[in-house]
Amino acid sequence: MPFIDLATLAEREMAPGFRARFVHTDHMTLAYWHIRAGAALPDHAHPHEQVTSLIEGAFSLTVDGETRTLAPGGVAVIPPEVRHSGRAETDCVIIDVFHPPRDDYR
Amino acid sequence: MPFIDLATLAEREMAPGFRARFVHTDHMTLAYWHIRAGAALPDHAHPHEQVTSLIEGAFSLTVDGETRTLAPGGVAVIPPEVRHSGRAETDCVIIDVFHPPRDDYR
Repeated sequence: MPFIDLATLAEREMAPGFRARFVHTDHMTLAYWHIRAGAALPDHAHPHEQVTSLIEGAFSLTVDGETRTLAPGGVAVIPPEVRHSGRAETDCVIIDVFHPPRDDYR
Repeated sequence: MPFIDLATLAEREMAPGFRARFVHTDHMTLAYWHIRAGAALPDHAHPHEQVTSLIEGAFSLTVDGETRTLAPGGVAVIPPEVRHSGRAETDCVIIDVFHPPRDDYR
């Protein structure tokens, strides 16, 4: 079954203000986030390569000590084990893609 | 440099009505598409795993002989070498993610 309607997937609150639906494939995990204004992501790292795409809103992201406020069209490429943190300046819609899959999000 | 503003990347017309900007990482390629209503993608396959996320519009996608019209929140997971084709029912914004990277899109 190749087709998924995200609306049929349960949304999970992974941290205060960070709600996501996940699609796990053989090689990747996609996280479709709705993030509440003011919610903050503590500094962390993981072995997965990550690409963050800002769809709606404004999200202040720090990657390896460099900070940028992402607006729609803003993308961040976060290599494995690179520390990152962030804060939603407004309500946000973000898509994160990870390789390999995030088994810790299953 | 982890941050990319898609507006600074050249948009390429990969097929009539299919314009994209690409972000290539070590393990993935992300394609940010603007597709014109009526544009059609011929049946094809490739060795990359693909995940298609419909952001705006309506796109009729056929994967391995099964057809669905994706609306926002619609996702398709296309395994390697599985044939797929499609048609934009309206102007569309779509994000495709591929693993491994699409060297043919560099």
